[in-house]
Amino acid sequence: MPKLDFDIITLGHGSGGLLTNKLLDSGVFHLFDNEQLQQRHDGAILELKGKTAFSTDSFVISPIFFPDSNIGELAVNGTVNDLAMCGAVPKYLSLSFILEEGLEMTDFWEILVSIKWAAEQAGVQIVTGDTKVVEKGKGDKIFINTSGVGQVHDNAKISLEHVRPGDKIIVSDSIATHGVAIMSVREGLEFETTIKSDTRCLNHTVTALLDNFGEDIHLLKDPTRGGLATVLNEIARDGNLGVDLNQKHLPIQKEVSALCELLGLDPLYVANEGIFMAVVKAEIAEKVVDKLRKIEHCSNAAIIGEVVENHINQVVITSAIGGKRVVSMLIGEQLPRIC
Amino acid sequence: MPKLDFDIITLGHGSGGLLTNKLLDSGVFHLFDNEQLQQRHDGAILELKGKTAFSTDSFVISPIFFPDSNIGELAVNGTVNDLAMCGAVPKYLSLSFILEEGLEMTDFWEILVSIKWAAEQAGVQIVTGDTKVVEKGKGDKIFINTSGVGQVHDNAKISLEHVRPGDKIIVSDSIATHGVAIMSVREGLEFETTIKSDTRCLNHTVTALLDNFGEDIHLLKDPTRGGLATVLNEIARDGNLGVDLNQKHLPIQKEVSALCELLGLDPLYVANEGIFMAVVKAEIAEKVVDKLRKIEHCSNAAIIGEVVENHINQVVITSAIGGKRVVSMLIGEQLPRIC
Repeated sequence: MPKLDFDIITLGHGSGGLLTNKLLDSGVFHLFDNEQLQQRHDGAILELKGKTAFSTDSFVISPIFFPDSNIGELAVNGTVNDLAMCGAVPKYLSLSFILEEGLEMTDFWEILVSIKWAAEQAGVQIVTGDTKVVEKGKGDKIFINTSGVGQVHDNAKISLEHVRPGDKIIVSDSIATHGVAIMSVREGLEFETTIKSDTRCLNHTVTALLDNFGEDIHLLKDPTRGGLATVLNEIARDGNLGVDLNQKHLPIQKEVSALCELLGLDPLYVANEGIFMAVVKAEIAEKVVDKLRKIEHCSNAAIIGEVVENHINQVVITSAIGGKRVVSMLIGEQLPRIC
Repeated sequence: MPKLDFDIITLGHGSGGLLTNKLLDSGVFHLFDNEQLQQRHDGAILELKGKTAFSTDSFVISPIFFPDSNIGELAVNGTVNDLAMCGAVPKYLSLSFILEEGLEMTDFWEILVSIKWAAEQAGVQIVTGDTKVVEKGKGDKIFINTSGVGQVHDNAKISLEHVRPGDKIIVSDSIATHGVAIMSVREGLEFETTIKSDTRCLNHTVTALLDNFGEDIHLLKDPTRGGLATVLNEIARDGNLGVDLNQKHLPIQKEVSALCELLGLDPLYVANEGIFMAVVKAEIAEKVVDKLRKIEHCSNAAIIGEVVENHINQVVITSAIGGKRVVSMLIGEQLPRIC
């Protein structure tokens, strides 16, 4: 961290005046240095080609630091992944902070460094930003909004309209990891193993799939808040389709599964940050899984179900012992402020 | 407002599950209806041509309702105007809410309607969004982030690099109105006249100037937080230039000026939302002012100063009686949470 003559954030740092400038000049601009930021204008001027994807997300996760990651990395990955789910190659992010007066500068700096690292991993540039400060008790340490633009992959034809009965549903890796990681620190539980959040950028993996399988990838979704169950219900509802799931094939880490049982959580509703779900043409499903399993952090990729023309608007799961039940959308809150 | 079976926002409305869907289906999607939102994907797919401007702002203003406007309209205009200041025609906005548990649905709806109205005035579409809810006491009713993209005007050459000594500095209308309007409601002061916030979209006015004067418009800035003094100091500092201001020529409403005096505020530091500052080639300055004065809400446009090669990095103002003083950047806070 650079040497500063202040160690906590005060209201003045959000004034737009001298202190805001001092905060930004203390190392923030230097950390994210690029041609766009050097302009110090109200926005960035970009050269984009072809179709452009545009997405936004605000991050309010609590706690802001959690095993192996923090709100900064999450905020970059969240918008990068939303763009990837549109079949786009993420290029540029905006970064907007709402800081609570009293935030420690060391915490803020650690978050900034994570943002830089995550942006590098994803191959995106932070090109424009904003910083506001609210009085103590009117926020919660730090909220971050990231918005992003990217160029849609030439081969991408991602749309619910392309999903057909018979399509296979694939997850890219084990489910429920992020939500359980947050829960385990939030509740102050102590376990023998620490479950780490799986937050990561998914864009490179998505690009590899689109390079190889193009328009046979019909839909991509990252099952964050509301978990897999909610995303699948949205597909069933908005697409006027049925969805069949097979519990036996759902990949889940042993520790995550055990903790879900202990805490009474259904992993289908637990938030994910480092996996995505793909709905693909049946013929390529096995190949997609083979391809994924060779990619880092996708070794547990699996076909978990399929799109059907029965039980329209419903998601039905077959349990390990063969029983069937309807899986509804998340009702209420399983865990607030998970992202 | 549509008929709902809930009248306050609860944590569940931010779950990403059934209640989030219910909130969005209660009328939000319908209100902003467009092709992009109907896709209900993680992002929007846009067709953009040429150079693209990209900007972001989070709005944390308190109070959220103020004379003649609210945080919703401000949030649209803020990002629209930032894009306009880049010389761009704003096209698409993202909209991200951080709601505090307990927010009244009637207040939220009023804000949503203002957002729709402001977007229509500016000619932009809301194409993607996000909603989070934080526990009571961890936010303050509502924070809004808007990010936006627009197409840079063919004639625009807006950059600090083009600013030269001799250039004239113009403001598009009376200064300090927004800040004083907020101050007057925040302090619970009672006056005979109500000062209304001047928040409005500036993009159509900027487009008219660029259509007519093209590259002779060297720089555009909206002097929001930190006021005119801060923006001018940024130009002096980043451009290695001097700035001369003439107090006599600063347009300010009589009531605003009186209230500033009463409250001990220097109007140069008070936030503006409905005006912009243009740095233009000296030869066209009078013509720009004439043009502006014919446009609604610009009738008090004036040349207020010029860029000079003396006193580099400093802004110097000549008072009504001929005295000179240095105007520094805003130090600390004149009024927190003004936008």
